[in-house]
Amino acid sequence: MKALACIAAAAALVAFTAPASAQFAKPEDAIKYRQSAFSVMGTHFGRIGAMVNGRVPFDAKVASENADIVAEMAKLPWAAFGPGTDKGAIPTRAKAELFAQPAKAKEYSDKLIAESVKLSAAAKTGSADALKTAFGATAATCKACHDDFQAKL
Amino acid sequence: MKALACIAAAAALVAFTAPASAQFAKPEDAIKYRQSAFSVMGTHFGRIGAMVNGRVPFDAKVASENADIVAEMAKLPWAAFGPGTDKGAIPTRAKAELFAQPAKAKEYSDKLIAESVKLSAAAKTGSADALKTAFGATAATCKACHDDFQAKL
Repeated sequence: MKALACIAAAAALVAFTAPASAQFAKPEDAIKYRQSAFSVMGTHFGRIGAMVNGRVPFDAKVASENADIVAEMAKLPWAAFGPGTDKGAIPTRAKAELFAQPAKAKEYSDKLIAESVKLSAAAKTGSADALKTAFGATAATCKACHDDFQAKL
Repeated sequence: MKALACIAAAAALVAFTAPASAQFAKPEDAIKYRQSAFSVMGTHFGRIGAMVNGRVPFDAKVASENADIVAEMAKLPWAAFGPGTDKGAIPTRAKAELFAQPAKAKEYSDKLIAESVKLSAAAKTGSADALKTAFGATAATCKACHDDFQAKL
């Protein structure tokens, strides 16, 4: 049963990450790629956060530009969590639990993609309140996944 | 005259990178951001290269998906080459020449953005030959800028 569960988990992990996971030659290539995608996404998400939290003035156009980039970037990292990318020549904070629970990981990534599309739509309304609500929902999705699957620094 | 030339170069550098350069709190934030954007772009560009060079079979749909991401990513790194980001707490291969010649740097970045749009259009035709031609033109643009502005490893 344990072996079967393992095979099922591996198949689900492939479903989460396919088809691009096979395109990373080395685990560290996948780790670097996903970290880079998260870094770019985080930069632009942080700029929206600065507005939402009042650290910089609200600017609907800038918010929308940043939200569009977040929505594009949100699609990318997941293909780089394929089998065998739990460790490599560079450090990763992805926990073993992520690779053991691919169905849950896929739920989180699908949720982030969906929330970032809503964030982008909210930014286009020009309403600071709508932006704030959507930002909060997106940030909560980031946090839920990090709480479960990202090792603390 | 030297001071005036310096002021003009600084103004041109701001024109190349504005308005987002002010949004990086520390030079290393900008360096990490642009390296991340280049890394993601390079991964997807490399996948097109693998097709063009016959290392993987030509697949028009996959080529188009990757080219679209290249075209999106190609817009991003330049805002992170603002004044004061020539060095920071993490290493950068950007040469002093880049910061001294912002008009030339802007020419290169504009060219890459334009070529990557053409690459994306070429990928959508479904023609392997059109993809190869556009890939070559885009790669030449990368190389020209790297030759002038990126320190060798």
